[in-house]
Amino acid sequence: MTVLITQVYRRFSDLDPLGHVNNVVFLDYLQEARLRVFLQLDYFEILEFIQVMVHQSIDFRHPLMYSTEPLTIEVWVSSIGNTSYSMKYRILSEKGELCAEAESVMVCFDKDKAVPIPEKLRTALQSILEVE
Amino acid sequence: MTVLITQVYRRFSDLDPLGHVNNVVFLDYLQEARLRVFLQLDYFEILEFIQVMVHQSIDFRHPLMYSTEPLTIEVWVSSIGNTSYSMKYRILSEKGELCAEAESVMVCFDKDKAVPIPEKLRTALQSILEVE
Amino acid sequence: MTVLITQVYRRFSDLDPLGHVNNVVFLDYLQEARLRVFLQLDYFEILEFIQVMVHQSIDFRHPLMYSTEPLTIEVWVSSIGNTSYSMKYRILSEKGELCAEAESVMVCFDKDKAVPIPEKLRTALQSILEVE
Amino acid sequence: MTVLITQVYRRFSDLDPLGHVNNVVFLDYLQEARLRVFLQLDYFEILEFIQVMVHQSIDFRHPLMYSTEPLTIEVWVSSIGNTSYSMKYRILSEKGELCAEAESVMVCFDKDKAVPIPEKLRTALQSILEVE
Repeated sequence: MTVLITQVYRRFSDLDPLGHVNNVVFLDYLQEARLRVFLQLDYFEILEFIQVMVHQSIDFRHPLMYSTEPLTIEVWVSSIGNTSYSMKYRILSEKGELCAEAESVMVCFDKDKAVPIPEKLRTALQSILEVE
Repeated sequence: MTVLITQVYRRFSDLDPLGHVNNVVFLDYLQEARLRVFLQLDYFEILEFIQVMVHQSIDFRHPLMYSTEPLTIEVWVSSIGNTSYSMKYRILSEKGELCAEAESVMVCFDKDKAVPIPEKLRTALQSILEVE
Repeated sequence: MTVLITQVYRRFSDLDPLGHVNNVVFLDYLQEARLRVFLQLDYFEILEFIQVMVHQSIDFRHPLMYSTEPLTIEVWVSSIGNTSYSMKYRILSEKGELCAEAESVMVCFDKDKAVPIPEKLRTALQSILEVE
Repeated sequence: MTVLITQVYRRFSDLDPLGHVNNVVFLDYLQEARLRVFLQLDYFEILEFIQVMVHQSIDFRHPLMYSTEPLTIEVWVSSIGNTSYSMKYRILSEKGELCAEAESVMVCFDKDKAVPIPEKLRTALQSILEVE
């Protein structure tokens, strides 16, 4: 199993009145990490028109403060079905603290209909698939 | 059981390159609805310093486009524990389409330690508690 | 001269660690007001592909706090040239405080070349043109 | 004269339905650059409570697309008065294209009253002051 590592930078505008990164912004970090993973897998162009996020969950483990250092986000695929797959993430602070764990379920679509995951995408996803 | 209804307005900046509301922004709508619910319950001042979101999940049911009409967000409490409680949401478009269903788990904190839900908050939460 | 009045709602996520609306978000309010003005003028579809913002300036007059009440944004056209025009704005809080005054310069484009403002847009802009 | 150079990373969420970085987000990049400049000048703690942005203007020179490469933002001080000073910026794409030029006017405040720029801040600002 290969976990892809990507880095995301915080901004002052990610902070809320409590002075830490707002919980909603954690999801923006996941989106950015996901895009960068697809770019690493060289499948972004194929992917952007055919997959839709249908579910997302996140567990917040530790508050995040501002830093000019990047976050580390680990991304991997936890399961691959016929028309959908699940991606998992861990967000780590610049000090290595585990700040959140999350999961997204994506479905491949052709217009309004779920369709089997295209072979090229399936191969790419399998390269980062969690093996028990 | 009382479901609180709150309205949230979209902005052009909520849209992504695909032309619909970005999935991350749905969580921002939930945050706004949650704040407005606490204001309706008159418990905002007490609440803001003592509760932390520890989990959030969302199921995306239907894409959201831009409209000057507000979204309707239904909010209620699905369970109340000793130190934590769960809030549920439904996001409805201006046409009444169910666009997302979501759940947040909040924990009451005193500094770094989870503490029992204060009595006044518990009473407020019970007023919108789902009864099976 | 007609000044168009539009309302924009704040969100908790507009606030920064100082507890007031972040200065960048003021520009988002202007963008939202501008879109709503174009929708009122019934010219949005024509406009969205042919105009580009080339300049924006803003004077911050008063801090903005969170409120569930909408902001009032006044919008009018201050000058119309051959290929460009200027739009002015005033942002008023729910208490009627003048919080910011701003101006945008927009240029009509056909691909990469500035082109004369289309007649239908010129007519619409003249309906809200400031007369000295 | 020293121009401070800082790097800011784009995110997918900076893009609007036209597929390029939304004009409002340019101001967020300036905010991020400004913060990083203050951190470089070691004056952030002093500064954050005593200065208020009173004016900002920006000229958009070139559209910005998404890239995983950082933007380069050049920042310097263009003038220093008694209670206020002006900061200038240039935003450059990863290809070196000049995408925007901007200026902010900041005023030092003690509660609600403008006050002279503190000596330590004045010294820091002079180190990046434009000399004609």
